[in-house]
Amino acid sequence: MNYSIIRKILGVVIQFTGAFLALPAVCGLFYGEKQAIVYIVLSIAYFVIGRIISGFKLSSNAYYAREGLVIVGMSWIVISILGAIPLVITKDIPSFTDALFETVSGFTTTGSSILSDVEALSHTGLFWRSFTHWVGGMGVIVFILAVLPMTGGYNMNLMRAESPGPTVGKLVPRMKDTAKILYSIYFGITVAEIIVLVIVGMPLFDALCISFGSAGTGGFGVRNDSCAGYSSLMQSIITVFILMFGVNFNAYFFILRRKFDEVFKMSELKGYFGIVAFSIITITINVRNMFPTLYQAFHHSAFQVASIITTTGFATADFDRWPQYSRALLVLIMFVGACAGSTGGGMKVSRIMLMFKTVYREIRKYLHPRAVTNVTMDGKTMDRSTLHSVSVYLSTYMLLFSVSVLLITLFENLDLETVFTSVACTFNNIGPGLSKVGPTCNFGFMQPVTKYILMFDMLAGRLELYPMLMLLTPAVWKNA
Amino acid sequence: MNYSIIRKILGVVIQFTGAFLALPAVCGLFYGEKQAIVYIVLSIAYFVIGRIISGFKLSSNAYYAREGLVIVGMSWIVISILGAIPLVITKDIPSFTDALFETVSGFTTTGSSILSDVEALSHTGLFWRSFTHWVGGMGVIVFILAVLPMTGGYNMNLMRAESPGPTVGKLVPRMKDTAKILYSIYFGITVAEIIVLVIVGMPLFDALCISFGSAGTGGFGVRNDSCAGYSSLMQSIITVFILMFGVNFNAYFFILRRKFDEVFKMSELKGYFGIVAFSIITITINVRNMFPTLYQAFHHSAFQVASIITTTGFATADFDRWPQYSRALLVLIMFVGACAGSTGGGMKVSRIMLMFKTVYREIRKYLHPRAVTNVTMDGKTMDRSTLHSVSVYLSTYMLLFSVSVLLITLFENLDLETVFTSVACTFNNIGPGLSKVGPTCNFGFMQPVTKYILMFDMLAGRLELYPMLMLLTPAVWKNA
Repeated sequence: MNYSIIRKILGVVIQFTGAFLALPAVCGLFYGEKQAIVYIVLSIAYFVIGRIISGFKLSSNAYYAREGLVIVGMSWIVISILGAIPLVITKDIPSFTDALFETVSGFTTTGSSILSDVEALSHTGLFWRSFTHWVGGMGVIVFILAVLPMTGGYNMNLMRAESPGPTVGKLVPRMKDTAKILYSIYFGITVAEIIVLVIVGMPLFDALCISFGSAGTGGFGVRNDSCAGYSSLMQSIITVFILMFGVNFNAYFFILRRKFDEVFKMSELKGYFGIVAFSIITITINVRNMFPTLYQAFHHSAFQVASIITTTGFATADFDRWPQYSRALLVLIMFVGACAGSTGGGMKVSRIMLMFKTVYREIRKYLHPRAVTNVTMDGKTMDRSTLHSVSVYLSTYMLLFSVSVLLITLFENLDLETVFTSVACTFNNIGPGLSKVGPTCNFGFMQPVTKYILMFDMLAGRLELYPMLMLLTPAVWKNA
Repeated sequence: MNYSIIRKILGVVIQFTGAFLALPAVCGLFYGEKQAIVYIVLSIAYFVIGRIISGFKLSSNAYYAREGLVIVGMSWIVISILGAIPLVITKDIPSFTDALFETVSGFTTTGSSILSDVEALSHTGLFWRSFTHWVGGMGVIVFILAVLPMTGGYNMNLMRAESPGPTVGKLVPRMKDTAKILYSIYFGITVAEIIVLVIVGMPLFDALCISFGSAGTGGFGVRNDSCAGYSSLMQSIITVFILMFGVNFNAYFFILRRKFDEVFKMSELKGYFGIVAFSIITITINVRNMFPTLYQAFHHSAFQVASIITTTGFATADFDRWPQYSRALLVLIMFVGACAGSTGGGMKVSRIMLMFKTVYREIRKYLHPRAVTNVTMDGKTMDRSTLHSVSVYLSTYMLLFSVSVLLITLFENLDLETVFTSVACTFNNIGPGLSKVGPTCNFGFMQPVTKYILMFDMLAGRLELYPMLMLLTPAVWKNA
C-alpha cells in the first residue's frame, strides 16, 4: 500500500474543501450574515492545512485499484467531517453527529435531513448545505482530476472508484480531459436550470440551491415544504431537469459531438425513459382520485417519479399517503435508480437491465442448450467479467442492506416499514422514505448510532460499496 | 419439444395422486367419516384416468432439460388441482380457490392457510392436508423415480428440475438408487419422529400429521394454536426434528455409510448450524423480558428459529409481537432458508455462503490483483458456471419477488409489511408472515387474484423458479 499517495491526495482534498467553503462565504457576505466569518476563517485554515499535508514528499508515484478505493473512501469521510464543522460552529446545527449526518447526506446527494425547520438556518448554512450536493453529484475526485495538473497514468484507478455504474468508459483518451468534459456538461446544465428558474420568477437564492439539489440529484430544499410551495410551472421545470441529470452523461457528450446515432444506440436510455413512463402512467391512474384534475394527478406523479428514480428526493406531495401500489412502486424504483454515469444513485438502470437479460439468457439456455447465448447492451456483447461484477454487486448490495436493517432494529424500536425504507432511501441516496421517515418527516429523532449506520449506508451507496468495504477490511491496513 | 413424454409422465403423476389419496381414505374409514367415500372414489378415478393417459404410445423416449422443467412445473400444478378436488367435494373447504391455495401450500410445504378454524375440518381432510406436506417435501417426481421402473438415462433432467440447491449431486451412480436412498432416509426419520412423539404422549393422529408437517418442513398443524398447545417436551422434540429435516440429506447418507469425515467437510452444515445458533442466542436475549424464565425465552426462540429457517412455519408463540430485532431477523432467515438437498425452502444456506464468498473474493481481488482467487466449498473449488448460476438465481429471485409485491398492491389495500411478508413467506415456503398474515392470522381474507399470485410464488419458490418461469415463456410452447 502506497501510504504517501493517500496522504498527498487527502491533502489536496482538504485544500479543495477550503476552496469550496469560499462560495457560501460569499453568499453569507451578500446577506450580511456573521456566519460568513466562520466560513472564511475555515476556508483559509483548510487550504493551508491541506497545502502542508499534500506538500510531503511522495515515496512513489505508483498506485493501484486498492489505493484508489481507499483514497476515495477516505476523501469522502474527510470532506464530510470538514464540511460539518462550520455548521456546528455557526450553531446552524449544534450537534456534531447531526451536522455530519447532514453533510454526508449532502455530499452523497442523498438529501435525508435531521432538520425539522430548514427555514431557521442562515442563508450561508443553507447555501453550503445545497452546494455539497453539487460537489458530490459529479464527484470530488473527478473535480480534482478535472482542474489539477496531476501526472501519471494511474488516475483511472481514482476515477473508476468514484464513478457510478457497471462500466466506466473514457470519453476521450486522457482521463483529465474526460473529467473536464463531464464537469463542463454538468456546469452547463446547472447554469441553464438556474437561469430558467429565475426567468419564471423563482428568487435567485432558491434557484441556486434548488439547481444544486437537482444537478447532484440530492434533494435538500430551502423551504420546509420542499418543493410544494413553488408554482406548478417551476415544479415542471424541476421535473425535466432532474430527469436530465439522471441520464448517462455520455449521451450529452455524443450530442455535443453530433453523434446522434450513438445516443439512439444507448439501451440504458430506453430502459430509463421506459421505466419513467410506465411509473408515471400507472401512478397517475392510481392516485387519480386524490387530485381535483387528471392533469394535477399527472403533474405530481411525474414530479415524484422523476424525483425518486433519479434519487433526488424533492417532494411536492406527501406520497407516504398515496395508495399502496404507488408507495410500493416508488420504493421499487428507489432501488432501480438512475442511469450509470449520471449523478443519480441506486443500483442503476443498466445493472437492472443486465440482470433481466441474464435471467432471460438462462431461460433461453434451457430452450436451446446448444445455441450460443450472449448478453448484449448497446448492440455490443457484454463480456463475462462485467456480467460477473454486476451479479457480485447485487450480492454485496443485498448483504449490506440486510445487515443495516438488522443493526438498526437493535437500536430503534420502529416499525419495519420505517426501518426498511430508511435504509432503502439512504443506501440509494434518495432522501425521504415512508412512514416515520416520509417526505413530511425527518431523521432527527433517531439514536446517534443509527445515524452513523445510515451515514455509512449513504457513503456506501454513493461510492458503490467497495471503497467503504475496503476501509472495513483489516487486510487492507496490513503492510503486505 | 417432446410432448408425448410430458403426457406420459403427467399420466403417471395422476395415477400416483390416486394412490396418495388412499391414505387419507384409510384414515377416514378408521374414524368412520363419510368423507372417506369421496377419497376412495377419487382415488380409483385418478388411478384409472392416469393409467389411460400414460398408456398412449411415446413418439420418442428422449427428453432434455426443458422437458424436465416443463414436466415438473405442470406436474405440481396438476397434483395440486387434483388434491384440491376432494376438499371441495367434502365441503371441508367449499371454495375451489381456497382449496387450491391450501393444496398448493401443502405440496410446496409452505403451510400458509386460508382456514381460520382448522379444527372444524374432518380427520380425513386434515390428514390429507398434512400428508401433502410429506409428499411435497422430498418431491413428487423423486418419489416416482424411486418406485417406478423407468428406463432411459434422461431422468437426471427430471431430478435436477425438482431438487433444491445450487448443485444436484448423485449419491450413487444410478438416479433411481439415489431417489430410493433419499426416500428411505426421509421415511426413516419421519417414522422416528412419529414414534418419539407418541411415546411422550401425543395422540397418534396429531403425531402423524405433525410429523408429516415437520418432515416436509411444511407447517400445517391440526390445532388452531399450531404447536402452542403441546407440552414443552413435545415442542422440543419437534424443534430437533425440523432442524434435522433442514439438513442436506447427503449428510445422512454419509453417516449411513460411516463416512464421518465427509460429514465434517460439509461447509453448508457449519453455516446452517452457525446461523441457527446465532439467531437463537440473539433472539433469546432480545425476547428475554417477554417470558417468565430464561429457559422459556430460549425454548420459544429455538422453536421459532428452527421453524422459520427450515421454512416449516409451526408456531408456539406469536412472534409478530416480538421486538423489532427478532421480527427483522426472522424475516431475514426466511430468505436464507435451509440446506440444499433438504426438504426446506428459501434461498438455501449454500447459496448465501457462495454469495458471501464471492463478495469476499472481490475484495481480495482488489487487494492482490495478481493472485489466483478461487471460491471453495467443502474444500473443493467451485467452478464458474455454478457461481454464475447462483448469481442468476439471485437476480431471478429478486425480480420475481418485486413483481409479486407490486402486483399484490394493485389488488389489496394492505400495509407494505403485510404485503412484503406475504410474498416472503410464500415464496420461501414458510407459512406465516408478519402483521395481518402473522402466526395468529390466515390468508383467507385476500382477493382470489392475490391468492393465485401467492400460489404462483409458492410453486416458484419450491421448484426454484425455472420450472414455473418456463411455463410462462411463450417460446417454450412454439414447436421449434
